[in-house]
Amino acid sequence: MSSGIDLYAVIMAGGSGTRFWPLSRKRTPKQFLPITTERTMIEETFRRVLPLVPARRVYTIASAAQSRTIRRLLPKMPGSNALVEPRARNTAPSLILATAHIYRRNPDAVVAVLASDHLITNEPLFLKKLEAAAVAAARTESLVTFGVKPTFPSTGYGYIHFSKDGARRFTGEPFYSVRSFREKPSLEKAEEFLKSGVYAWNSGMFLWRASVFARALERYSPEYFPYWRRTLEALEKRTRTGLTEIFDEIPALSIDYALMEKAEGTIVCAGDFGWSDVGAWSALGDLWTRDENNNARRGDVVSVDASENIIHNPGKLTALLGVDGLIVVQTKDALLVGRKDRDQDVKKILELLEKTGKKEYL
Amino acid sequence: MSSGIDLYAVIMAGGSGTRFWPLSRKRTPKQFLPITTERTMIEETFRRVLPLVPARRVYTIASAAQSRTIRRLLPKMPGSNALVEPRARNTAPSLILATAHIYRRNPDAVVAVLASDHLITNEPLFLKKLEAAAVAAARTESLVTFGVKPTFPSTGYGYIHFSKDGARRFTGEPFYSVRSFREKPSLEKAEEFLKSGVYAWNSGMFLWRASVFARALERYSPEYFPYWRRTLEALEKRTRTGLTEIFDEIPALSIDYALMEKAEGTIVCAGDFGWSDVGAWSALGDLWTRDENNNARRGDVVSVDASENIIHNPGKLTALLGVDGLIVVQTKDALLVGRKDRDQDVKKILELLEKTGKKEYL
Repeated sequence: MSSGIDLYAVIMAGGSGTRFWPLSRKRTPKQFLPITTERTMIEETFRRVLPLVPARRVYTIASAAQSRTIRRLLPKMPGSNALVEPRARNTAPSLILATAHIYRRNPDAVVAVLASDHLITNEPLFLKKLEAAAVAAARTESLVTFGVKPTFPSTGYGYIHFSKDGARRFTGEPFYSVRSFREKPSLEKAEEFLKSGVYAWNSGMFLWRASVFARALERYSPEYFPYWRRTLEALEKRTRTGLTEIFDEIPALSIDYALMEKAEGTIVCAGDFGWSDVGAWSALGDLWTRDENNNARRGDVVSVDASENIIHNPGKLTALLGVDGLIVVQTKDALLVGRKDRDQDVKKILELLEKTGKKEYL
Repeated sequence: MSSGIDLYAVIMAGGSGTRFWPLSRKRTPKQFLPITTERTMIEETFRRVLPLVPARRVYTIASAAQSRTIRRLLPKMPGSNALVEPRARNTAPSLILATAHIYRRNPDAVVAVLASDHLITNEPLFLKKLEAAAVAAARTESLVTFGVKPTFPSTGYGYIHFSKDGARRFTGEPFYSVRSFREKPSLEKAEEFLKSGVYAWNSGMFLWRASVFARALERYSPEYFPYWRRTLEALEKRTRTGLTEIFDEIPALSIDYALMEKAEGTIVCAGDFGWSDVGAWSALGDLWTRDENNNARRGDVVSVDASENIIHNPGKLTALLGVDGLIVVQTKDALLVGRKDRDQDVKKILELLEKTGKKEYL
């Protein structure tokens, strides 16, 4: 990017979500699926950030197996940038490892932490906000949370409570002091949050200068700071076993719990850039081609008295008769037929498959 | 059969029903599908009648293409017994042709007309009633309708109104005089019929002595009788063109309209032998393997809060989530997802496919 800031992106791609079963499987979690567009979500994430971050400064962090997939999907990214976490230990350990890598290149580098499997429809606004956040991270001693301006009283997202007092602007965008992080609220609370104008959705995206991250760990996360130092040492010595030992020991917490919720002086910017974490099948209803009865579809669909269905059945004809609000997902070996308003319970299907010994479908 | 009666069976297999789409197609109507058991319905029909009628005296009547399928499915039946109707002209022309064939072998032969695509679960009772009906046809000058004792107030079947006065018995079974044939009734009427005890379901199965059939046509169906004579002549001359000409001209009516509803002296026997015309997908719910939530299935099914569904998806896993009363039918190129209580409207899907140029699925 311009203005002399050494900006890096770290795409977190170690997730193993199962909410898009039967399309998503253990070996192909959501970030490796082309569910929002014709390209996989991680390809979209990579492509989206390129106007601000050149490919050689984009990193990913995931398991060894996932990293092989990533190298195949992102051929323009140097293969060594696909960082491997020896074990899946939630986001705090991954981000310590990724930030340490970048710290060794330049302690003053700014790290933008991005999710590999989120949807962003207004890319120009996203990039404008991201650039501003990078400037804020470069010029302050603050961790920066990259929030989303709520557009409805979501009970599915966490919130960031901020203060409008003493807002600072970077490249024209306002940044506010974070007061607290809030868990997924009740609908009543969510409506309050929305009305108040001082809450943003916690997108799970953050920016920090590598040195600021290190100092914040030292000050606010004494449990993790020793692992930061050991990680730097292990990278210095280039021994794989060092990292494996660290990941065997390090507590598995999200970066939110491990650092963000404890740190002081954190600032937030919030934008309404058409963000969604695409948490379940029903989120795709708005993204796919729809017919006149609001049947979202991938594949050929004919319908009689059927509306508001979501159909994934490419290469086959689907005929709908008198059904509303269903999810129908066809894959090579499995077919899901469920109610859209039950899509959070897809995991119950997976539990049942596990319990009944049908693990080949997981 | 015993008692010196020369009994023939004619299995009507020319139907082109589409109510089991997407499993049934133009080239594979219901009678050629293994939907009630692991065998096709016509194989079941053939097998079922063998204790009374030897294979060489079983005939089928269908189109040329269908007859090729039949010869493959019923290898024990002499190939020449698969009679070909030059054109599909409803049941009256087919039965004139089939009965004429048998008449030429023996005018006193008894013809049992059977549907190729009906379900009968109590076979011993069916055979007992059929044998009695054959005796009745052999020993009287009556056409015999082979009715079914109603077990619920069906609005989907036609009814035969009979009189209990002057019942006659053959091999112990009672036969009653037919008063009239009644179309599919309203629910109110159907309940009346059921309560009265003098109505039977019209199964579309009949028995007649070939010579009685000929005389009945002459007397009650003057429109058709000339075609009977021409058919006999054409068979005598063994010219295919003769039959084709007849089928080009002959009115396309059901045997009910063309003869049965006009004939006098007709008698009926009625049995509760677990009969169903298997008219639509929902009829199969009782026949297939069911899980504890009454999900009838062919194929592996796991379900969470799902009941009363009918699933045809062999070779694949089907996962159901929160859905009730659905039909899910998978075939190689098409998937149907519909409400069970809308199964009579599968034809609307077919109309839509026709209209939208997707004829490859018909």
